[in-house]
Amino acid sequence: MRVVITGGAGFLGSRLAHEILRRGSLTDARGNAREVRELVLVDVVAAAAPGDRRVRGVTGSLDDRAVVEAVITPDTDSVFHLAAVVSGQAEADFDVGMRVNVDATRNLLERCRTCASPPKLVFASSLAVFGGALPDPVPDDAPLMPQSSYGTQKAIGELLVSDMSRKGFIDGRSLRLPTIVVRPGKPNKAASSFASSIIREPLAGRVANCPVAASTRMWLQSPSAVIDNLIVGHEVAAERLAGAARGAASDDSRAGRSLAPVQSRSINVPGLCVAVGDMVNALRTVAGDAVAERVRWEYDPAIDRIVSTWPARFAAGAGRALGMRADDDFASIVRAHIADTAQAGRAPI
Amino acid sequence: MRVVITGGAGFLGSRLAHEILRRGSLTDARGNAREVRELVLVDVVAAAAPGDRRVRGVTGSLDDRAVVEAVITPDTDSVFHLAAVVSGQAEADFDVGMRVNVDATRNLLERCRTCASPPKLVFASSLAVFGGALPDPVPDDAPLMPQSSYGTQKAIGELLVSDMSRKGFIDGRSLRLPTIVVRPGKPNKAASSFASSIIREPLAGRVANCPVAASTRMWLQSPSAVIDNLIVGHEVAAERLAGAARGAASDDSRAGRSLAPVQSRSINVPGLCVAVGDMVNALRTVAGDAVAERVRWEYDPAIDRIVSTWPARFAAGAGRALGMRADDDFASIVRAHIADTAQAGRAPI
Repeated sequence: MRVVITGGAGFLGSRLAHEILRRGSLTDARGNAREVRELVLVDVVAAAAPGDRRVRGVTGSLDDRAVVEAVITPDTDSVFHLAAVVSGQAEADFDVGMRVNVDATRNLLERCRTCASPPKLVFASSLAVFGGALPDPVPDDAPLMPQSSYGTQKAIGELLVSDMSRKGFIDGRSLRLPTIVVRPGKPNKAASSFASSIIREPLAGRVANCPVAASTRMWLQSPSAVIDNLIVGHEVAAERLAGAARGAASDDSRAGRSLAPVQSRSINVPGLCVAVGDMVNALRTVAGDAVAERVRWEYDPAIDRIVSTWPARFAAGAGRALGMRADDDFASIVRAHIADTAQAGRAPI
Repeated sequence: MRVVITGGAGFLGSRLAHEILRRGSLTDARGNAREVRELVLVDVVAAAAPGDRRVRGVTGSLDDRAVVEAVITPDTDSVFHLAAVVSGQAEADFDVGMRVNVDATRNLLERCRTCASPPKLVFASSLAVFGGALPDPVPDDAPLMPQSSYGTQKAIGELLVSDMSRKGFIDGRSLRLPTIVVRPGKPNKAASSFASSIIREPLAGRVANCPVAASTRMWLQSPSAVIDNLIVGHEVAAERLAGAARGAASDDSRAGRSLAPVQSRSINVPGLCVAVGDMVNALRTVAGDAVAERVRWEYDPAIDRIVSTWPARFAAGAGRALGMRADDDFASIVRAHIADTAQAGRAPI
């Protein structure tokens, strides 16, 4: 089986690669468990070689069709499409966001049509596809109403994944991922970057700023839960995916006239709803007062404007029915980050 | 003021051009009523010259950027984007649909960014952006869940219009038009084409087939009401547009956490919910038994599959609040078609 991970040099891509290599096999679009013989990691920067003969790194951008042609060969069985420009950058530079989040996604999907048989494709979407007045919690069938260019671009990706799956070109599934905490490394241009910084930086002895109110709630997930859910999203049979979405919709007594099966391939991934103040409280419980005191509170309206349009709590019944999971509580996310950092050979505190 | 109509050689485009020329002025994005000095009709086929010195025809496809550059000059004030590949053709040929309904729309929107000031842009969207289980009537804030490639492509257009309006690149408004009856001319590849054929053809002495059940309901509008509503959609101030959408959303007691203003530029246009059997009954009432007996009933599952995913009744409160109108009843639509045909010098019966 040949598997491709876009954004394969990134934090999530490299963790996903590690997990796929550990498992050794995945389920293909025909429902057969097959050995992973080749794992292609494509990214704009070179992926770290994990020292595994199954892995091949490709450096290049997916808005270049030649790169996409080299990456998606006819024998490709599965694609995890994680490559994206983050929310803050997509908002600051509309053209870059369109090129990477829309054009590259379309290039990839179009190229999948040339595969010997329609590949599975897991698209990392986002809760940023939602916005405006929404029920709390947000149901699985809530309207797409993005309030940022990033959310708009992810919504366009979802629409293409759904329609091309309906047409039989791919076997796609779009996973609307919660905000991932704690990301390692440096703060980036994602509007949600602070959610990782306010845990990671104080634990590393550095001050971090929180640009939103303590009462602001977010929908969160640890890296290891996200990896598990990406795998679940890949492994589940297409029939069950559509069935789960239909099941959730039929709970709605207002269900109307249409008898056609719902052909949405988008799933709200379960997560944890936590107020930013409670994230810092959990940090205090796990790591102590001195660490928690390294969080500063300087309000940034540009970041708050984006973050406040994202819903903070989802029903996510369809995702749970498929076997996706949320973290138990935020303290366990903090502890997992400390354990990860220690394992990576860096002192967390 | 310089106004562009894409699809300007088509039935709707030429009627819209006629109405704009008759009015002589439109309201620009700054709220000023201004004289229409140049009206550009662009289409893949040459537009009939209406014998008016204000009109300029351009023949070419909007998926060609050179054509778009020639059409959207920096002094363009308003664009009515009607050009599209119809539903049946977009379903039969995915690539053509993507090129015309997505790429051409994007070319047009991108080019509007080079205008001296952000132009008004009225995008002809469709109820085909909806699908799956929906409340009856469909509320203004119903989820986008297209079940056809045409609906997917229109939904992508709406998302781009909304986001580019939010960014201040254009002053856009997407109007989800009902199915237009009675269209003149020949049947086309639209899945809804029969809805016009079963009225137009019997009136012209020809047999027409109805490929769906008599109980199938559709959301309909006459050509003259559509033209009026396109003009309303253009004339209304952007602030009122967003306000109307917010007003509708705030009726919903489930309204959630987000305090950000809803930035959707999409409006469900009011229409008339009519069962296909009642359309034929109205034809019988207006034109007699002999005419109505020319309708045959031969079921076509491919057409029914597309049509049955379209909702048939909308609340459309936001559109009505903006001054958009529905026809009084279906018999008046039939009578208006007979009058139009007589005026055009063709015997309707």
